This record gives sequence, C-alpha cells and structure tokens, in this order.
Amino acid sequence: MKPSLPKGVRDFKPDEVDKRNYIFDTIRSVFIKYGYRPIETPVMENLSTLTGKYGEEGDRLLFKVLNNGDFLSKTNPSLLEKKDSNGILHSISKRGLRYDLTVPFARFVVQHRNDLAFPFKRYQIQPVWRADRPQKGRYQEFYQCDVDVVGSDSLMYEAELVNIYDEVFARLGLEVVVKVSNRKILAGMAEAAGISDRFMDMTIAIDKLDKIGEEGVKDEMRKREIPDSSIDSVLEMLKVKTLGGLESFFQNTDIGKKGIEELKTFHSYFDLRQSTNEVKFDITLARGLNYYTGCIFEVTAKNVEMGSIGGGGRYDDLTGVFGMDGVSGVGVSFGAARIYDVMVELDLFPKDNRASLKTLLIAFDEKSHLYAFDCLNKLRNAGINSDLYPSPTKMKKQMKYADAIRVPYVILIGGNEMETGNLGLKNMGTGQQEALTLDEIISILK
Amino acid sequence: MKPSLPKGVRDFKPDEVDKRNYIFDTIRSVFIKYGYRPIETPVMENLSTLTGKYGEEGDRLLFKVLNNGDFLSKTNPSLLEKKDSNGILHSISKRGLRYDLTVPFARFVVQHRNDLAFPFKRYQIQPVWRADRPQKGRYQEFYQCDVDVVGSDSLMYEAELVNIYDEVFARLGLEVVVKVSNRKILAGMAEAAGISDRFMDMTIAIDKLDKIGEEGVKDEMRKREIPDSSIDSVLEMLKVKTLGGLESFFQNTDIGKKGIEELKTFHSYFDLRQSTNEVKFDITLARGLNYYTGCIFEVTAKNVEMGSIGGGGRYDDLTGVFGMDGVSGVGVSFGAARIYDVMVELDLFPKDNRASLKTLLIAFDEKSHLYAFDCLNKLRNAGINSDLYPSPTKMKKQMKYADAIRVPYVILIGGNEMETGNLGLKNMGTGQQEALTLDEIISILK
Repeated sequence: MKPSLPKGVRDFKPDEVDKRNYIFDTIRSVFIKYGYRPIETPVMENLSTLTGKYGEEGDRLLFKVLNNGDFLSKTNPSLLEKKDSNGILHSISKRGLRYDLTVPFARFVVQHRNDLAFPFKRYQIQPVWRADRPQKGRYQEFYQCDVDVVGSDSLMYEAELVNIYDEVFARLGLEVVVKVSNRKILAGMAEAAGISDRFMDMTIAIDKLDKIGEEGVKDEMRKREIPDSSIDSVLEMLKVKTLGGLESFFQNTDIGKKGIEELKTFHSYFDLRQSTNEVKFDITLARGLNYYTGCIFEVTAKNVEMGSIGGGGRYDDLTGVFGMDGVSGVGVSFGAARIYDVMVELDLFPKDNRASLKTLLIAFDEKSHLYAFDCLNKLRNAGINSDLYPSPTKMKKQMKYADAIRVPYVILIGGNEMETGNLGLKNMGTGQQEALTLDEIISILK
Repeated sequence: MKPSLPKGVRDFKPDEVDKRNYIFDTIRSVFIKYGYRPIETPVMENLSTLTGKYGEEGDRLLFKVLNNGDFLSKTNPSLLEKKDSNGILHSISKRGLRYDLTVPFARFVVQHRNDLAFPFKRYQIQPVWRADRPQKGRYQEFYQCDVDVVGSDSLMYEAELVNIYDEVFARLGLEVVVKVSNRKILAGMAEAAGISDRFMDMTIAIDKLDKIGEEGVKDEMRKREIPDSSIDSVLEMLKVKTLGGLESFFQNTDIGKKGIEELKTFHSYFDLRQSTNEVKFDITLARGLNYYTGCIFEVTAKNVEMGSIGGGGRYDDLTGVFGMDGVSGVGVSFGAARIYDVMVELDLFPKDNRASLKTLLIAFDEKSHLYAFDCLNKLRNAGINSDLYPSPTKMKKQMKYADAIRVPYVILIGGNEMETGNLGLKNMGTGQQEALTLDEIISILK
C-alpha cells in the first residue's frame, strides 16, 4: 500500500513547523502583552451551528462528518431511492468541521456568557477546513489567526488592534502598510453622491480601483447603471487623501459625518504611539462590507507582490444569530500562510533557529560512545540543544548525517580525546576544527 | 437558536488553554534540547490509511468525513435499498479524522523517506478523534503528545527517552515513578515457566497484579488453564526486584537473556545521568505488548491516584504496513489530559502566569482616558502585559471588571494624577494603594 494524503491537505515538516511557530509565537507574545487571552474551540461543531452562516457556497464547502454506527437507519427510504444527497444529509450527519474562527467564537461567547467578563478579549490560532477545489497555494486545511474584543464599542480598541499589527510586523521584520477606513465613510460617499440605495454596487466597483484603475471603476459603475453625475461625484471623492478633505463633501450626510468622527476618535488614541509601519487612511478600502459596520483595516506587505496579509474591522452584531443581541466587537486577523510565504521570499526568518540542534557528537568506538553520552548529558544540562549519533559507526557515515541535519557544530570523540579531555569541535560552516575541553565548548556554544 | 456543542467535545477557556500550553511548552522545550523536531500531519487522512490499523473496534470508532457534492451519485442502489450502512461507506466517504499520531507518523516517514535523515527524531503534539461513548473525563477530541526516533535500534535512545521523562516531570514539579521493563523479559519468563505458547494469557494476568494481587493473578492464570507448576514458577519470578535476580531463572531462555542484556545496555547509558525521579525495573509491567518488541516504559504520578500518565516502548516494525520494512523505532507519549488533572489536584501550576494580565488601568474621565492610553503604550513598550478599561465609566464598574479578570494590580488615573504625575497603584491582593510615577510603577511591575 502506497501511502498518500487526501488532495488539498498536507504534512508540515520540521523546518516548516519551526518557521510557522516562529510566526505564531511572535504574534502570540504581542497578543498576550495587549491583554488578549487564548481560547480553543473543538474541530467538530454541530452542523446546525455552522449551516447558513457562510452563504450558500459556504454550506456547500463545509466538511460534514458522518454519524457513527448504523447511520442509514433513520434515513427516509424514498429519499435514498431517489439518491437525494441533500435530502438525506441531515439524517446521516450532524457534525461539521470548523469553517472559520468567527462563528465558533460567537457560539462560545453566547454559550459561556455567564462565565465571561466583558469586554472579553480573545485570540485564537487554529486550523479551519473548506472543501474548495485544491490548487497551488490553496489548501482545504489551513490556519487562521484571529484576535477580537467583544462587548465594547470603544474606538480605543481599533487603535489597539492597529498597534498590534504594527508591533507584530515590526518584530517579524516585515515592512507593511496598514490601510484604515470606515464603512460609514463609504456610506457617506454613497449618500453624498445620491446613491445610498446603490451602496453595494458602488463599493464593489471602488474595491477594484487598484486592479482596474479609475476608468475601470467608471465602467464598472456604468455597467451597474449608476447615473453619470453620481459616478463623477464618487470619483472626485476617491481622490481625497485625508479625512479633512472629505468634510466639504459630507456637509449633508450624517452617516458620513459619523464616519469622519469615528476615524478622528480612532486617531486621538492611535496617534499617541509612534508606529514603525505606515498607517494610512485609504478611502478606496472596501473590505468585508457584508459584516463590518464601522472601521475597516487591511494590511499589505511592502517590497513584494502578495495581496492582503491581514484585515479586520468593527462588527455591531456578532452574536445575534445565537440569540444574544447588542454585542459589538472589533477584530483583526493575520493571514498566516501568506505571511509565511512573504517571509520566505524576503528571507526574513532568523538564521539562528533556537528550535534546532546546535551540535552533534560523534564517537569512534563503543567506549568513547558511552563517554560521549556523558558529554551529551552535560551539554544538555547546560541548555544546549545537542545530540549524539546512536552508534560509533564509520566516521564518514556519521558526518554525512551531520550534513543532512545541517547541524552547525560537530564534536568528535575517540580514545585520544577521552584520555586528554580535549575534544574536537568542528565548525561545519568553515570546516575549522579545534581541540577544546567540554567546558570550553559549552561556553562557546551557549 | 441555543448554541451548543456536539457531545464529547468541549471548548477550552483562557485559563485552561494557558495551563495546557504551560505543560506543552515545558515538554516541547525538553524535546528540542534533546534534538527532536516537530512535525504536523493533517486532521483528515485517507480512510485507506486509517482503516484496519486499530482493530475492529478502532474501525468503528473512526470519524468518517462525508464526500462533498452529490455523495450518493456513485452508490450502489441495492445497498441503499437495504440500508446497508457499512456496504455504502466507502462509496460516500474517503476521508477520516486522525485517530492517533502513530499511524500518521508511519505514513509520514514512508511518504517522505527520501527527504528525511535517519535516525529521524520527531515530536508531535496534536489532537486526535475517537467516537467513544462520551463520559466523565473521556472526550472524543483530545491531545496526544508523542516523541519517537526511528531508523536506529540503539538502546541509547531508550536511555534518552527516560531522561526526557525525568527532566519534563522535574520541570513540571511533578514527582513520578518511571517503570522500565522489556518484552523479552516477559517472553523469557514464559519460556522459563514452560508456557511460551501462552505468552499473552500470562501477561494479561500479570498486568493485573496491582489491582487483583498475587492470589488474583493466580486465579486468572488458572482460569486460562495455565498449569499449576508454571503458575508457581511465574509467581516466583514476579517477586524478583532486580535484573540480577532474574539471571538464575533465565539460564535456559535465550530471549530472556537477551532481555536482560538489553536492559543492562540501557542502564550503561542511563546511569550516567543523575535522575530526579525514581526509575525502576518492574517485572510486572506488561504494557502495549501488541506492538512493543523491546523495552517498555510506564510513568505514574506519586502522591495521587491516577493510573498511568505516560508510556512507550520499542517497536521493531513501524512502517511495514506502508511497504517500508526494517524501520525500528522507540517512542514515548505524555498523557496530557491526565498530567493536567494531576497538576490541578496537586496545585502545581505556577501562580505567576506570564501569559496573563499584570495590570489594568482605570481612568476617571475622557481626558484622563486618553492620558491613560498613553501610559498603557508605555507599559506595553516596557514589556508589561497591560490593559485599559475601554471607557471612563463609574469606578465601581471598572473595579468590578478588574476583579472579574483577576488582575493583580490596578492603576488609577484622574485629573489629579495627570497633574502631579503620581498615579495610584493598587495591589488587588492586599488592597494597598500607593501614589507613584509611571516609571516607578514600571520598575515594580517588571
């Protein structure tokens, strides 16, 4: 039997896990400093929790888990005869795999509402599953990394979350731009242009500005039958680069004024801290408007072509669908897989990986092998990631192993070394070798 | 709609995740020091990889994932008509959820054999799923934590793995006993007692010694129709506490002699390091004999009633089932959930949780709220886990929140504090309050 994996999922090898953990550990340490706490929800949720939350396509892309035991026993025979897959679904499957972290988080908040103190600040780093057609760079199992605060509408949190973006990417050494806007600004634009009823048509067009340019946006709005005068008005507003510049357009739109006010409040908090990265108002940002109701954010990496590597915003009603109203929240997420790819491309992972081996001991015979194991214990006791080749086989074979595992130092031990106490420390990068005592080696490798 | 979870799975709240991560981080740091590398395998494996690997009961307890789309389209109509759940299974499901970490690891080794250097040392900490009937303390989703080395039969690794047990539990502050034996010792006993053909009957009885006592073991063996003379011989050997004591019994059993020799070699490595915990030969240890072929290990906690919290052993053929022969390996696992429960019972989790909040700022009005956010930035820049209540609401409400999130210090900021620069630092444990500058507070909290 030839081993294989289902399409769309993959193994992570040691180097990959180390690199990914480096990203997650960095992000996690910032979350913790900002007072966010971890939660984990189970991989399997009730299908009733998941179904209908992600639109029709989402329902289709949910992975469903077959009921255990004699799963057909309660199925309607006439549906079986018709081979009605959809019809029998709920009779043979009551569980599904987590599709994102937001719906399980909402369920969690409602289910544990009496045990939580609000505002509740949580982060969650877990994989999710989607039955998308597998293709290059797109998998059916992938990690999401979300941080949210619910139970407060304070814009302090918007500032805090952008600070988190700034600090995480500064620590990762990844230069980014954080774009900031507000759904109410977009609503104000629509109102100012006299097309409040065409909000979605307008924002779908605006969202494409980067890709299709001003003329393209114009065509898109025309195709959607937005009047020319409104199109001109929208395009004029799209040229605005600052909040102040919008005020003259927003004289007669309360929601637009509210949007400006919210972004000003955001800035009153945000501007207190010196950012490493560029954070800018971007009136063309039109992300997640199916659920965001206030501020919206998007992060893109500089110096590399790679769409968004993070995003988020304010939502006014996270938990209404589970019967708990009036819970406002704001959150952002980190696109872990893309951040990984960007960091590989820009060669940003640290060369000195604290999770990998520092030295491999190599012994020449049985007696020195035991002696080497004693040295190994001492190296490990000193906190140095160390290993010993398991048998005193041919030197060539042992060195080949050292090369294969890319260990930076090898320590050579034979009868002579045991006698003198001077071991051979070989730097695998330079090839240089020195005779040193174990204590000397420990102080070099530490 | 009232939110709920499927039976047998659960949410992990912040305190629980923190505690579990404390255990995993401790274990992981030891694994890394000993040269083990992390891998992760996907949650979904091909059913063909999983089926038949865990016995009939395992096949039944596997969670199967329904194929996406029109899953009934290729199903045999006559099987549908008969409602033959087992019959149609493979036509509607080709994926299952990971049932343990061993089979996916074996698949991984074979699949990536050309990219791995042997001996390959890996650790893996991931959840697994089993459709067991849910009951107190037994879940359908739970973490496993395995560390293995494959591609070498050196007994150095047995010593290393027991060293890892010792060091992990020493770091966790948990006193344990590590019991060591060898399948070949048990085989030797059977041979010495003239019942080599009754090996399993003998070991099943021996394994119960702790619970049913000597008379019970005797009865059990009688029930299994082992001759009285053999029973006497086995019981005599069970009284042996040292390896040396066995030698006289094992004069005529080669496999028994081999078992003694292996444990002696183990000791030649193991005895070089001073252990914190008790490590002892236990001739009654009869664990995992369906797959272990050499040394076997079991860890139990002292001072608490809680079965085994870890175990492992040597297996001669990990990957044969996937077509790669001659891969010997040895590994141990940590029973994360039980270790968690023992540590709760013995109150061993550190009081000062580096993952939780150190201080909450509380502001009295809008102006001091902005000032407090500035202080918050400075505290965080100093690396102190800090937070600010999101609005300058009533003091009582803010203090109630501070109590609810169990933060050890509160910093009070109003107009007076802004003017003098002396903020109110309140120790929530003692209730004491001091007026201090932010710099003074930072040096206290750091």
